[in-house]
Amino acid sequence: MENVITYLRQQRPQHLAELFELLRMPTVSTLPEHAADVRRCAEWLQAHVTRLGLRHAQLFETAGHPLVYADWLDAPDAPTILIYGHYDVQPPDPLDLWQSPPFAPEIRDGEIYARGAADDKGQFWAYLKAIEAFFTQTGKLPVNVKLLLEGEEEIGSENMHEFVVNHADLLRADAILLSDNSQQARGVPTICYGSRGLAHCQVEITTAARDLHSGGFGGLAANPILVLAKMLAALKDQDQRVTIPGFYDDVVGISAAERRNFERLPFEAAAVKQEVGLRELVGETGFTPLECNWARPTLEINGIWGGFTGAGLKTIIPAQATAKITMRLVPQQDPAKIYQAAKAYIEQLTPASATLRLTGGPDGRAYLTPLDHPIFQPIVNALRQTYDVEPVFNRTGGTISVLSTFEDVLRIPIALIGLSNPDDNIHAPNEHLCENAFYLGIEAIARVLAELRAWRP
Amino acid sequence: MENVITYLRQQRPQHLAELFELLRMPTVSTLPEHAADVRRCAEWLQAHVTRLGLRHAQLFETAGHPLVYADWLDAPDAPTILIYGHYDVQPPDPLDLWQSPPFAPEIRDGEIYARGAADDKGQFWAYLKAIEAFFTQTGKLPVNVKLLLEGEEEIGSENMHEFVVNHADLLRADAILLSDNSQQARGVPTICYGSRGLAHCQVEITTAARDLHSGGFGGLAANPILVLAKMLAALKDQDQRVTIPGFYDDVVGISAAERRNFERLPFEAAAVKQEVGLRELVGETGFTPLECNWARPTLEINGIWGGFTGAGLKTIIPAQATAKITMRLVPQQDPAKIYQAAKAYIEQLTPASATLRLTGGPDGRAYLTPLDHPIFQPIVNALRQTYDVEPVFNRTGGTISVLSTFEDVLRIPIALIGLSNPDDNIHAPNEHLCENAFYLGIEAIARVLAELRAWRP
Repeated sequence: MENVITYLRQQRPQHLAELFELLRMPTVSTLPEHAADVRRCAEWLQAHVTRLGLRHAQLFETAGHPLVYADWLDAPDAPTILIYGHYDVQPPDPLDLWQSPPFAPEIRDGEIYARGAADDKGQFWAYLKAIEAFFTQTGKLPVNVKLLLEGEEEIGSENMHEFVVNHADLLRADAILLSDNSQQARGVPTICYGSRGLAHCQVEITTAARDLHSGGFGGLAANPILVLAKMLAALKDQDQRVTIPGFYDDVVGISAAERRNFERLPFEAAAVKQEVGLRELVGETGFTPLECNWARPTLEINGIWGGFTGAGLKTIIPAQATAKITMRLVPQQDPAKIYQAAKAYIEQLTPASATLRLTGGPDGRAYLTPLDHPIFQPIVNALRQTYDVEPVFNRTGGTISVLSTFEDVLRIPIALIGLSNPDDNIHAPNEHLCENAFYLGIEAIARVLAELRAWRP
Repeated sequence: MENVITYLRQQRPQHLAELFELLRMPTVSTLPEHAADVRRCAEWLQAHVTRLGLRHAQLFETAGHPLVYADWLDAPDAPTILIYGHYDVQPPDPLDLWQSPPFAPEIRDGEIYARGAADDKGQFWAYLKAIEAFFTQTGKLPVNVKLLLEGEEEIGSENMHEFVVNHADLLRADAILLSDNSQQARGVPTICYGSRGLAHCQVEITTAARDLHSGGFGGLAANPILVLAKMLAALKDQDQRVTIPGFYDDVVGISAAERRNFERLPFEAAAVKQEVGLRELVGETGFTPLECNWARPTLEINGIWGGFTGAGLKTIIPAQATAKITMRLVPQQDPAKIYQAAKAYIEQLTPASATLRLTGGPDGRAYLTPLDHPIFQPIVNALRQTYDVEPVFNRTGGTISVLSTFEDVLRIPIALIGLSNPDDNIHAPNEHLCENAFYLGIEAIARVLAELRAWRP
């Protein structure tokens, strides 16, 4: 193990240079104009993992972007670990808020700035470099490894479910490891045991065949922005509870043990507010901020547009207005059922003066691994050795929808090991990853793989 | 008079060609990138009216776009008529809905398609061509004429008030004529005796310093689109009444005489709905559609934007959302007072989690000339001769804010003579003007000027 760590420390400049090369590829999965960049990245990763020493490196085509798979299975007595990561990224807009271009990585004040630095390129890279270290220093890996890198995580992993179902034998393993989450606080090693699910819809309201003059039609024509505003306003009550009938029917309550774990975790409301410029925290009445973010479902409006948006006045009643909505869900909420409930409620809210066009659907279920699962002990040991700080357990308010697919099909435990800091601006301008956290993360994953050698599922 | 009409009929191709040249100039007053086009048009008009035979043709500079002035005052016994028009136009967007480019006029099925065809280039052109006909056929005009063409009508005539106040002597006249309105129904000659006022505001809601990940902050952060939606939803009640405190305080009721006039006017709800694709007419409870549109104030949301508006999903809680609002006002409502009332109410609706930035102000008062004013009789006679249909009187739901300035400063009657049809798509894609209405309009204005010769104020 000592040789592996020494090697990793010597190779830091090389590993950073490789990460920069990866970050330069604009793998925005949601934008069709970047499809070729996404594919180029997949091919680059395939070549890279082959050079590391992994076998059977290949691209699996999907209806969307390709998956990268590779494995190494020459440790007959050791467990088999499925490692997951995603090489696609969120769109970088609004571009004008970036201090340096999103796909031209640079280091400022010890932070690596680039879209994807933390989510997830800079985190999954740790697994590849840990593997590299074992191969170069020992000629083998401490555990059997199956590596799966996805190109559609940021657009809901739509094609992943079918792939996992059709390749269950190929993916068969004893546990799944991934790092697509952040530490609970700077330098506090963190294992995440649950994520929220997701469903989305787009609501398009049309009231006329064309934009109308507000002089000629003000007092005669319905205003689609007002119709949409009244609809959106009706989706949450004063207590920030979602008003969609049936929305909370299947929500699992928060256990006393979890409540105590949440209360012990470092969470500085003032610091969170300060960091992102919030005037106050706004959550569901009767729950703490962490409970609201991790264990309670929410509904968010992600975007809205309609009518005249230029400078100056344009006195129109627009013909159309549109909003994008997503809902974060918790264990036992079925995203398909929630989508249908939202659809039915929005249909009911549509007045006779308007035409509704609603699209959307389920994006993934929430996921939860029991806090007392034995997979966690070797990981805790490895993190304690690396960081010299007692690891904590948290949940995430985000969605890694592939996790519910893994659980449904493979029925094995999953551990998320957070390698990035909580203030890394993921999904926002100026996303970054602490350079030192990047180096420590690689060491942490190397130790995790070593510790898991003796684990017996 | 016969020679004048004969001349106008012979000159139709020439007058149409001139209108096309005028329509090709993209005089969008609200867009800074068109400032040079607006000025070029003003200079072109100055040269044109000089060629016609008007005197003292000049541009008056303002803080914005220039005004074109010219006169002819050699009829000592006849009244002096101030003729007003505006050469600026609304923005043409959304461009993709135009069947032909907005500034490349073309005739399809007897209609002249171009931005500004009806509002107002094709209408004020009638006055210039009527003047041309009198000069060429009689060497003089039947009345004294002062011509004033504005370049900022579509952006609220902000600089016009100051100009009129500072040039009251120059503009002194016995009456004001203009055509910036449409006929009540196709082929029904129409005199408009009242317009609505206008005030506007832009509401910008900020809840965070940057866009946030909806997984990481859903349940913690206020959503500015939801805040804005709840605010906008609260501006009108179920009866479509504006809820701003004090909004209706100064509204003048509708007299029994006006009610009867409104009821007699041709208004086909089914045709109006069909024409612009409305599912139903939506107006203030307790008032007829014409009352709602002409004699009751309204509030409209003209545009809204915030967050992610591209294709696919982007799971953010945006930092900001913005809406543009205008209010159409009726006689005795003070736009400045209404703007302040709206501002105060919106401030009151802003929750502690949000920062409000509100800009805007008053744009012009409503205007009303008494129905029984003697200026109307000569005009009715001229219209009856031209169209062989009994003229009607209506009001407009639109705003010609310069009218209240004229009344305040000059204290003379104003008549709006509608030369365009009611379905001309003004302020919308595919604006058009009936070719035949254009020709008849020129004849109508020639007859109006002739009839006014004998009128004594």
